[in-house]
Amino acid sequence: MQLGATSITIVTAIAVIGLAALVVAAVLRRQVLAAGEGTASMQEIARAVQEGASAFLSRQFRTLAVFAAVVCALLFLLPGDSGIKIGRSVFFLVGAGFSAAIGFLGMWLATRANLRVAAAASGPEGRAEGARIAFRTGGVVGMAVVGLGLVGASLVVLLYRGEAPAVLEGFGFGAALLAMFMRVGGGIFTKAADVGADLVGKVEQGIPEDDPRNPATIADNVGDNVGDCAGMAADLFESYAVMLVAALILGRAAFGEEGMVFPLIVTAVGALVAALGVAITRVRGAESGLAAINRGFYVSALVGVLLASAAAYVYLPGTFAELPGGTTGLEGHAGDPRLVASLAVLIGVVLAGVILWVTGYFTGTTSKPTLHVARTTLTGPATVVLSGIGVGFESAVYTTGIIAAAICGVFLLAGGSVPLALFLIALAGCGLLTTVGVIVAMDTFGPVSDNAQGIAEMSGDVTPEGAQILTDLDAVGNTTKAVTKGIAIATAVLAATALFGSYADAVRTALEDISGGLGGDLVEAMMSYDIINPITLVGVILGGATVFLFSGLAIDAVTRAAGAIVFEVRRQFRDNPGIMTGEVRPEYARVVDMCTRDSLRELATPGLLAAFAPIAVGFGLGVGPLAGFLAGTIATGVLMAVFLSNSGGTWDNAKKIIEDGSYGGKGSPAHAAAVIGDTVGDPFKDTAGPAINPLIKVMNLVSVLIAPAIVAVSVGEDANHTLRLTIALVATAIAFGAVIASRLRAAKVDREGRLEHEAQLVG
Amino acid sequence: MQLGATSITIVTAIAVIGLAALVVAAVLRRQVLAAGEGTASMQEIARAVQEGASAFLSRQFRTLAVFAAVVCALLFLLPGDSGIKIGRSVFFLVGAGFSAAIGFLGMWLATRANLRVAAAASGPEGRAEGARIAFRTGGVVGMAVVGLGLVGASLVVLLYRGEAPAVLEGFGFGAALLAMFMRVGGGIFTKAADVGADLVGKVEQGIPEDDPRNPATIADNVGDNVGDCAGMAADLFESYAVMLVAALILGRAAFGEEGMVFPLIVTAVGALVAALGVAITRVRGAESGLAAINRGFYVSALVGVLLASAAAYVYLPGTFAELPGGTTGLEGHAGDPRLVASLAVLIGVVLAGVILWVTGYFTGTTSKPTLHVARTTLTGPATVVLSGIGVGFESAVYTTGIIAAAICGVFLLAGGSVPLALFLIALAGCGLLTTVGVIVAMDTFGPVSDNAQGIAEMSGDVTPEGAQILTDLDAVGNTTKAVTKGIAIATAVLAATALFGSYADAVRTALEDISGGLGGDLVEAMMSYDIINPITLVGVILGGATVFLFSGLAIDAVTRAAGAIVFEVRRQFRDNPGIMTGEVRPEYARVVDMCTRDSLRELATPGLLAAFAPIAVGFGLGVGPLAGFLAGTIATGVLMAVFLSNSGGTWDNAKKIIEDGSYGGKGSPAHAAAVIGDTVGDPFKDTAGPAINPLIKVMNLVSVLIAPAIVAVSVGEDANHTLRLTIALVATAIAFGAVIASRLRAAKVDREGRLEHEAQLVG
Repeated sequence: MQLGATSITIVTAIAVIGLAALVVAAVLRRQVLAAGEGTASMQEIARAVQEGASAFLSRQFRTLAVFAAVVCALLFLLPGDSGIKIGRSVFFLVGAGFSAAIGFLGMWLATRANLRVAAAASGPEGRAEGARIAFRTGGVVGMAVVGLGLVGASLVVLLYRGEAPAVLEGFGFGAALLAMFMRVGGGIFTKAADVGADLVGKVEQGIPEDDPRNPATIADNVGDNVGDCAGMAADLFESYAVMLVAALILGRAAFGEEGMVFPLIVTAVGALVAALGVAITRVRGAESGLAAINRGFYVSALVGVLLASAAAYVYLPGTFAELPGGTTGLEGHAGDPRLVASLAVLIGVVLAGVILWVTGYFTGTTSKPTLHVARTTLTGPATVVLSGIGVGFESAVYTTGIIAAAICGVFLLAGGSVPLALFLIALAGCGLLTTVGVIVAMDTFGPVSDNAQGIAEMSGDVTPEGAQILTDLDAVGNTTKAVTKGIAIATAVLAATALFGSYADAVRTALEDISGGLGGDLVEAMMSYDIINPITLVGVILGGATVFLFSGLAIDAVTRAAGAIVFEVRRQFRDNPGIMTGEVRPEYARVVDMCTRDSLRELATPGLLAAFAPIAVGFGLGVGPLAGFLAGTIATGVLMAVFLSNSGGTWDNAKKIIEDGSYGGKGSPAHAAAVIGDTVGDPFKDTAGPAINPLIKVMNLVSVLIAPAIVAVSVGEDANHTLRLTIALVATAIAFGAVIASRLRAAKVDREGRLEHEAQLVG
Repeated sequence: MQLGATSITIVTAIAVIGLAALVVAAVLRRQVLAAGEGTASMQEIARAVQEGASAFLSRQFRTLAVFAAVVCALLFLLPGDSGIKIGRSVFFLVGAGFSAAIGFLGMWLATRANLRVAAAASGPEGRAEGARIAFRTGGVVGMAVVGLGLVGASLVVLLYRGEAPAVLEGFGFGAALLAMFMRVGGGIFTKAADVGADLVGKVEQGIPEDDPRNPATIADNVGDNVGDCAGMAADLFESYAVMLVAALILGRAAFGEEGMVFPLIVTAVGALVAALGVAITRVRGAESGLAAINRGFYVSALVGVLLASAAAYVYLPGTFAELPGGTTGLEGHAGDPRLVASLAVLIGVVLAGVILWVTGYFTGTTSKPTLHVARTTLTGPATVVLSGIGVGFESAVYTTGIIAAAICGVFLLAGGSVPLALFLIALAGCGLLTTVGVIVAMDTFGPVSDNAQGIAEMSGDVTPEGAQILTDLDAVGNTTKAVTKGIAIATAVLAATALFGSYADAVRTALEDISGGLGGDLVEAMMSYDIINPITLVGVILGGATVFLFSGLAIDAVTRAAGAIVFEVRRQFRDNPGIMTGEVRPEYARVVDMCTRDSLRELATPGLLAAFAPIAVGFGLGVGPLAGFLAGTIATGVLMAVFLSNSGGTWDNAKKIIEDGSYGGKGSPAHAAAVIGDTVGDPFKDTAGPAINPLIKVMNLVSVLIAPAIVAVSVGEDANHTLRLTIALVATAIAFGAVIASRLRAAKVDREGRLEHEAQLVG
């Protein structure tokens, strides 16, 4: 069923709503920039951070541009109509460009807002004003996310109509791929600087965090902006775009072209809700920033559900038989599409709320699990690490269980129809993302207030009351960051589950074009989605293994890069005793440069692994095992991501509990143990954990894109098993070559470490 | 095809071989006990360890007997012929009894051998004689494992013929269930005592390990015997029994009753090879114990492959059409069954060898990854923990990849026939287990020499050369322990993959008995093994989640129990200053009692989770999602198990590198950091990691057993969805009730910890 005139009008209106969201973003941006910029000393520090962050992102974009160009060329090698291929490649670049732009915007504004928040904290109404600026900064990013997502997706629908799915795959893939690289690169940068700064500054020299004598302190602040701001913003844009893309593809599959309209309507509702959330979230009187943010979230969620339901009752007919795409076997479905759609959106929104609550329970400073981890500081660092891992494992299980329950609920709604279930899962994801505007705003809050505190500490130009306000804002930021990670990974599961439908569609379509039979039992086994087939199970195992390898590589990269920073900081202190006395300014730029160089070098390995592992499995074993592989990445990925994020979150807040005076407070053995736990958690929660979200999407989209090519070389008369195995071997070689390269870098850092140790013994 | 007269003779002969293995075990046992028992002081210490270990195991068996009786009763509730049900229940008890007996034997002999190894080390030929006794001790356990396994399985085949599979399920389930509890209970005991002893003794008081002044030192030695000896022996028996059971069930399914003979022949070859391995493994001159053990392994492996191939060429026909069970659709298979079977066995043996090598690479004291972890001690405990986790993740990926490659290889051999592939996977597992005799012997080596060192240190009655010999033997034990864990988990993957076949068979048979249609789309979805079905994917996610929860619970249990031990040991030191001066003997028995009580209480939670999670998923979501669940447990389980074992192994050996003098040696900050890493690794490698192996089997066998019942309540005219959902809810409630109970215990330890801290502040 083709897109009718009314639908075209609706989609055009949605594109306009997207543009309006961008205008709102621009207005909010002006409001943020209009605030006071504080003292000259504060401005000088902020400028160093701005320059470092811009330099890193520019170099990162130059590196990634090459990579994107290569991928763009590879997309042309896949089978298909050349018009569609051009559209897909163009929108691949658009998706990647939007991800990059959102990331850059997030960083650019955050490095300006931090200064303004620091300045505002000392003024009258410091708390409310500081929170307002920090939250508005996030609002800019949030509105830009929904605006660019809506504009991009509705443009594709308007331009390509029935062919939109293939082009949307390109758009989503571009967004996810770039976001993954920004998550990994930024994550390595921020944690290498943070861990390196802490290990020498806090632990060895006993100087406070953000002390200007620490050569790594500017790098640490740059890291907050390129990792937590730029990486996170790109990641949330990617979540938004891929979820929308999945919903559109599945709507098209289930109900024809008209099926693409309703997901866009739900998402447009999200844009309105986001604007509302940003407008209503303000700190009233003495209430904490968290109370204001929670209120903003719950009001947005409620309004989102009501508006989406209203849209369903206005737009959708009362029976499945009346749906424009009633030709797809759902005519006999007994439910009311309006109710079914509203309930799916409701499940998504409730899911977001429950994850908010569970994450808060496991990582909050007043909850039992975190208090338990804090108590284990009494028996030393080993028990802190163990108890944090235990809490992380357990919280991962509950979060995952809730996501699984949501999928089951949607499945029941669909009454056993798999295509409808997949579409409704995507719709639930769109429902979840009606709150994305508020969520991005919440998340950006964290690094901005963290940086503001850093600027205040380094400049010494903030009043004691102002400093206390900034500390409070920073603590709120810690909680909101953990929450957004939980929500981001939930969208990954929903999007990936739904994209399974596109994958199966792509395979089915490709098989229809094949002449001749499958070509024997072995090929038939390669095409089977049967989970009890050993070769499919091998796919599941390899999928899980890829998540473990990716996580291990990301953590290793931080350990290595942080090790190099430690040696550099120690060298500066040793070569220049004037740094510790405050007479000489440390060489901040050297540390920033090292972080930039190392993180750009390190991001290649996990990135290549993510892109090439599905190619190796798909061409090597077949489309059945590749489906198993995706299932393995989803299951292990969500568990690993939540485990890493929540372990890190609970260690961070257990440290805060000690610093607030429990078990001996700052400087006690309990505090030393808590700091070790927190340092272990740093790459968990800010590098490996959050990068798994785009990883899952990248691997899913790569699989959807290559599925027709796998079918073409594997089955029928034209099967070419030599070509198939060659592709698999080359992909394996690229992925493992990258792993070996990272091993060699590890050996180099080890050598330097040994040499430094020996030099110390001689000296 | 029924069992012919020749086959009956062969199976009877195999049962006799099993009995002969038991006789060899008895002879070896007498040899071990004949060695000298050392001084009175050594005997006194050994007696305390013996008493503590016996007391723990007796109490554990009493607890587990109740549990086994309940499970036995539940087995009767399942649908089926009552004669078979009685046989299954009886052999469930036999399997459980064999597991318990092997565990008890392992502990009993080890607590006597440790003393004799300690005594022998001071004598002439100390190294060779000490290694001989330690290795013979393992030989007793190894021969008992193969003997009881063969006797039990061949007895079932002889008694039940065509009905043997159902009875074998009971036998394997009993073995796996008991082994899982012994792994968890013993693992918690040993690591609670070890971590507790180290945290106060080594870290706080600065006294050496095994110092008699430490009140937890006897408990630590008891733990080695109940965890590493009893738990490991039961676990390897279970691996052996379940692998054999899987091969017999699949042989029956693929080739009729005659199909059960060849797996028994391969396993009987393993018994001969085990006897050979024990006989030839002896230390020559000044060579290390490891060299001798490796030689024993490789010679056994080679002989095993040759004998198994010879058996294949003698016993099997030249084409699949000539096989007695040629009715199963394999008549047209082009391969030579003799070659195919030999290659499958070869793949299994090669898999064992490669895992041996990879594990050695990632955890050995001279390999790059361990040296890297040792170097990170220079930058503090946090980087040690991070680098060890990175190494663990990476090694898990390679080990898992190798197992996956082996499955793919077998799959190619089967030429795309799934039933044949499943049977060959089981056969490869039997091939892998031809080396089990040597492997058990290797593994037992570790705790015996560890304990011998403890007795030597505590008694002070061993010469310096003797002490050095014992230290060397202990280091060998560390490596062999890591290797056996890798091999055990490989058998778990192969057995579980193969058991998928039995699961599908059970479902298919049950469906054939159903009258009426499936009953709607939703029920049909519940029956689908299709991995792209969202509800199957939910199963995969829940399977992975169960592994995370189980691991988290096991680690938490150790953290909690160790915390309680720390407070008790501190109390003893505080209340009785004479302990530190050596005037007063500490109250060893109190600590042993606490460990016993706590570990028996703690083992219930993970145990109930393992038994009830598949019931909840199967009855709640259906047989399709339950298949997904099993796939999720296998994939996540193998990764998690290898990660936990190898991280622990690499931390342990990194600590040894420091203790051998690198980076400052003992007492340096690097050493303190390494000790923290090692302590984190303790529950990883000795509690959670190894327990995942029996966990996977227990969940698989529970699923196979309940599959007909799920079908009966879910589909057809007699479907009873109220009953189905009630069972699912009760199972969920039991599993989560256990989790909540463990949370309450955690709160209690936290309260004690807080009180002790406050008492100290006042004091």
